[in-house]
Amino acid sequence: MPLNMNKEVFITCAVTGSGATQDRSPNVPRSPEQIAESAIAAAKAGAAVVHCHVRDPDTGAPSRDPDLYREVTERIRESDTDVVLNLTAGMGGDMVFGPTEQPLPLNDGDTDMIGASERVAHVADCRPEICTLDCGTMNFAEADYVMTNTPGMLQAMGQMMTEMGVKPEIEAFDTGHLWYAKQLVADGVLEEPALVQLCMGVPWGAPDDLNTFMAMVNNVPSGWTFSAFAIGRNQMAYVAAAVLAGGNVRVGLEDNLWLEKGVLAENWQLVERAGTIIENMGARVIGPDEVRSRLNLTKRAPAIQ
Amino acid sequence: MPLNMNKEVFITCAVTGSGATQDRSPNVPRSPEQIAESAIAAAKAGAAVVHCHVRDPDTGAPSRDPDLYREVTERIRESDTDVVLNLTAGMGGDMVFGPTEQPLPLNDGDTDMIGASERVAHVADCRPEICTLDCGTMNFAEADYVMTNTPGMLQAMGQMMTEMGVKPEIEAFDTGHLWYAKQLVADGVLEEPALVQLCMGVPWGAPDDLNTFMAMVNNVPSGWTFSAFAIGRNQMAYVAAAVLAGGNVRVGLEDNLWLEKGVLAENWQLVERAGTIIENMGARVIGPDEVRSRLNLTKRAPAIQ
Amino acid sequence: MPLNMNKEVFITCAVTGSGATQDRSPNVPRSPEQIAESAIAAAKAGAAVVHCHVRDPDTGAPSRDPDLYREVTERIRESDTDVVLNLTAGMGGDMVFGPTEQPLPLNDGDTDMIGASERVAHVADCRPEICTLDCGTMNFAEADYVMTNTPGMLQAMGQMMTEMGVKPEIEAFDTGHLWYAKQLVADGVLEEPALVQLCMGVPWGAPDDLNTFMAMVNNVPSGWTFSAFAIGRNQMAYVAAAVLAGGNVRVGLEDNLWLEKGVLAENWQLVERAGTIIENMGARVIGPDEVRSRLNLTKRAPAIQ
Amino acid sequence: MPLNMNKEVFITCAVTGSGATQDRSPNVPRSPEQIAESAIAAAKAGAAVVHCHVRDPDTGAPSRDPDLYREVTERIRESDTDVVLNLTAGMGGDMVFGPTEQPLPLNDGDTDMIGASERVAHVADCRPEICTLDCGTMNFAEADYVMTNTPGMLQAMGQMMTEMGVKPEIEAFDTGHLWYAKQLVADGVLEEPALVQLCMGVPWGAPDDLNTFMAMVNNVPSGWTFSAFAIGRNQMAYVAAAVLAGGNVRVGLEDNLWLEKGVLAENWQLVERAGTIIENMGARVIGPDEVRSRLNLTKRAPAIQ
Ligand SMILES: [Zn+2]
Ligand SMILES: [Zn+2]
Ligand SMILES: [Zn+2]
Ligand SMILES: [Zn+2]
Repeated sequence: MPLNMNKEVFITCAVTGSGATQDRSPNVPRSPEQIAESAIAAAKAGAAVVHCHVRDPDTGAPSRDPDLYREVTERIRESDTDVVLNLTAGMGGDMVFGPTEQPLPLNDGDTDMIGASERVAHVADCRPEICTLDCGTMNFAEADYVMTNTPGMLQAMGQMMTEMGVKPEIEAFDTGHLWYAKQLVADGVLEEPALVQLCMGVPWGAPDDLNTFMAMVNNVPSGWTFSAFAIGRNQMAYVAAAVLAGGNVRVGLEDNLWLEKGVLAENWQLVERAGTIIENMGARVIGPDEVRSRLNLTKRAPAIQ
Repeated sequence: MPLNMNKEVFITCAVTGSGATQDRSPNVPRSPEQIAESAIAAAKAGAAVVHCHVRDPDTGAPSRDPDLYREVTERIRESDTDVVLNLTAGMGGDMVFGPTEQPLPLNDGDTDMIGASERVAHVADCRPEICTLDCGTMNFAEADYVMTNTPGMLQAMGQMMTEMGVKPEIEAFDTGHLWYAKQLVADGVLEEPALVQLCMGVPWGAPDDLNTFMAMVNNVPSGWTFSAFAIGRNQMAYVAAAVLAGGNVRVGLEDNLWLEKGVLAENWQLVERAGTIIENMGARVIGPDEVRSRLNLTKRAPAIQ
Repeated sequence: MPLNMNKEVFITCAVTGSGATQDRSPNVPRSPEQIAESAIAAAKAGAAVVHCHVRDPDTGAPSRDPDLYREVTERIRESDTDVVLNLTAGMGGDMVFGPTEQPLPLNDGDTDMIGASERVAHVADCRPEICTLDCGTMNFAEADYVMTNTPGMLQAMGQMMTEMGVKPEIEAFDTGHLWYAKQLVADGVLEEPALVQLCMGVPWGAPDDLNTFMAMVNNVPSGWTFSAFAIGRNQMAYVAAAVLAGGNVRVGLEDNLWLEKGVLAENWQLVERAGTIIENMGARVIGPDEVRSRLNLTKRAPAIQ
Repeated sequence: MPLNMNKEVFITCAVTGSGATQDRSPNVPRSPEQIAESAIAAAKAGAAVVHCHVRDPDTGAPSRDPDLYREVTERIRESDTDVVLNLTAGMGGDMVFGPTEQPLPLNDGDTDMIGASERVAHVADCRPEICTLDCGTMNFAEADYVMTNTPGMLQAMGQMMTEMGVKPEIEAFDTGHLWYAKQLVADGVLEEPALVQLCMGVPWGAPDDLNTFMAMVNNVPSGWTFSAFAIGRNQMAYVAAAVLAGGNVRVGLEDNLWLEKGVLAENWQLVERAGTIIENMGARVIGPDEVRSRLNLTKRAPAIQ
């Protein structure tokens, strides 16, 4: 049970996400080039890991086009700046329902539910060190939307990731997701020790009060590595909380657009600020090679096409 | 924040549920007559509240036929034994997906997603004191199933319950469900003080360790009334946990089939055992009239047809 | 970290204590004969361990006369009823101050501060399986009294207990006492795995709310055995709490005089009631031989005089 | 129950303390002039409150000479820099025992146990806005020492502080101290809402793990103001923890001598670093006037001599 402050902390920058944030800040990167550049700037500011989604270069709308992931990957891999690459595998589990008096048929225009192989195809292609595995199903703030990852789907995707040699970062949005992650390890789908991201304060998952956070931390098996973040205005507060509880930290525009009231942030600024907190707390920010060594990750080039 | 032991405790008996348990114990009541009799026996054993689902009288399969709810209600209301009636409104939010390589189209045979009005029609007809509101969306133990209650659906159903004068018992299966329940109150959909059931240890919701339980208890607003249960072999342990944390208790065949190892339980036996624990702990078991008074409930006859 | 419910629970009966309770209940045993008989009755009712202090046979006042301990021990050892013997080593650390405007000189009549060897002399003589070690210094409810066990004294006493082959039961009355117990183990004074009693709700130590209790439980090293109790009216509630949190239980007249409102308890009744709670929760009450096996204890006759 | 992050935080600088630290860092201020200067520099760096002990100007040994307090007070009051003054009332409760085989008589040379009036005489004279009240008795890291504040003494001192119009800052070193503080308020000795400092990680009080911290925070009555600190290398980590949990922060050479590994700190540097953490977390550091307004404090000149 990790309870002692983490003295050697890695920062993940969640560069762009899949939220409808592209029109709320001009700093949200859209094109592969912008995403890679923002990721590299974040790495230069101290992020050991960059967690990337892709977007339509023109509209900024969330996308899961494999070519876009490939371009982001190549640009980051070819850069002079070393960083651990973490690609989302969260896309393709979107259920959107009809009106409350007639939830079915689904809203076909917005629903995007695809098979396990297709959900990880870009991971197989890009071969990042890490990809995410959203470890459950839950409501979000929208009225008619469900983030849908059934146990069967998680087993299938998790098995594929393990076979690819890409480390799954389990995203736990509530206590039950963490419980199921332990089941995936018990079932041999995921390898021990696992890597988990505690995602706090995402409506309607776990709230970000410290009691709930500590209940989750107390349930992380000893030996696992964890990171934690809260969204919105508590992002920087959770940098401190995560380190205190023995974990690593995540910041970035996926989770929070603001540097301070009225000031839109760049990714590198959020990373820099997280680093300031960590170092002022008396811990050290570690780099990509130390992360690879701790998590037993292998940096690989994308697959030959 | 409720932290002091509850000295005046009500017991809810969850009589039959909608799980596929009918073939695992002959004691799971199937017909309205059996359900009503089991509920009444539970009330005689000390349950102030009976929480009822209905089943196909022949097969025992879960059902949401309004006539069955009506018959259960009339049999209970016409009995000489007074008890607070709590009907589920949990049916009709069942999504079952296709195989992991092709999750859509849905498995139409097993999927049962209906509109808000239809989900509460039997509540409007039977006019119980309480009906449940499953306050979120989550995976269960099955590979391809999702219990689906979107925010929009919960608002619609909650509003209808409030207008009917039936007290919603918010079922919180994880910390995020409780969070959303507070939002429903903040939005004026549910009335304050609310009534919440903390449902612990239901895979893949909140696990039933005490840290997680206390995180949820610490998040119940002061003034609200809460009850809690765990399923399976920890059912009786949670009788104690709930009372200790300031809450009320729920037992019954919906959550646990066993009295002890190798001995299948009857509902009244589980209630009796819960009462023994509560009284040995030094608390008093209260009856239906005290519950109505505390929760400001009105006992009503079913609607005239 | 023990968080899963304990399914095999031992009960300690704290038979008489050193509180000024002898005049508040005729059931508080005074003479060695009474104490041994009450202990044996408790063992027959299910207590695997009896924790004994001694009292002046005539006045009932707390005593630390070695002859009284010897007589209690011999009576228990010679009985037909097997039970693990646990003798207090808590006496002889009593500081009583003068008035608040002149706290020194001490109130010599009430102060009783003796050396380490003298504090454990009866343990060396009686050779019980277990003796207690009150692991800190704190105020009690009295205005001018301090229970005084300095770090130096605890090291000296702990070392003596270890050398005698008597298992110390560490009494932790607050979170800092448990912390120091871990230090005693780290220093090699006490052997790992240790045995700890979490003493909740004793003014002015740790209060008995579940958050505080869980903070202490979360700090018990994995591998250690723990028991827990609360005093007064929450005694039976803590039977449940201790089992839920993975521990063992203690009841008895040292901690609580009442069976229910207006009804003074006998020790065996409190044990019986604890057993009822434990068994109704679905756990098993274990006996003295299983306790010896788990804690690696040796039953020995008193020293030859 | 304070659980939301504090967005308006005050910093207390604990300038010098009474520990034997004067020879471990040349930066620990000794003379009234040095203490006042260090306090003023801390205030300029962002501390709204300065918590001061006094020391022998020559040796640096802890002192409770009223003239030294008076000089510190006058120097601070006469400075151009406004700051809330908090004087310790912790001196004069020191019990030091003889060897473990003969703890009495006390070590008279080191023992310093004085009456309540004498313990607060400098407070009556200097009339600071705040003075501390160490709310219990406990071991410290030394083998033969006990910090001694009996319930009777605390009632007497607390009553005097209330009558003087000086706000007591309750120092809670373990969960039982906080419990007793609530009793002092219930008894009418201290006024509601109270001000409490949670002192974490001081051996052998409460350890500074987050579970223990949250158990204490969960027990702070709503409406009270709290601050928290940990000593040693976790001082800066607890700046973050305190803010996250809804509290205010304390740093300074009383609690920690080091800015980072190998670099001895000045008080103002620790304050500055705390301010950096707080502001990077997105909160605002408030000044002495806002503190006075929140805590209903009156700035007064020392008594006329
Ligand atoms: Zn993402
Ligand atoms: Zn149900
Ligand atoms: Zn005892
Ligand atoms: Zn101080």
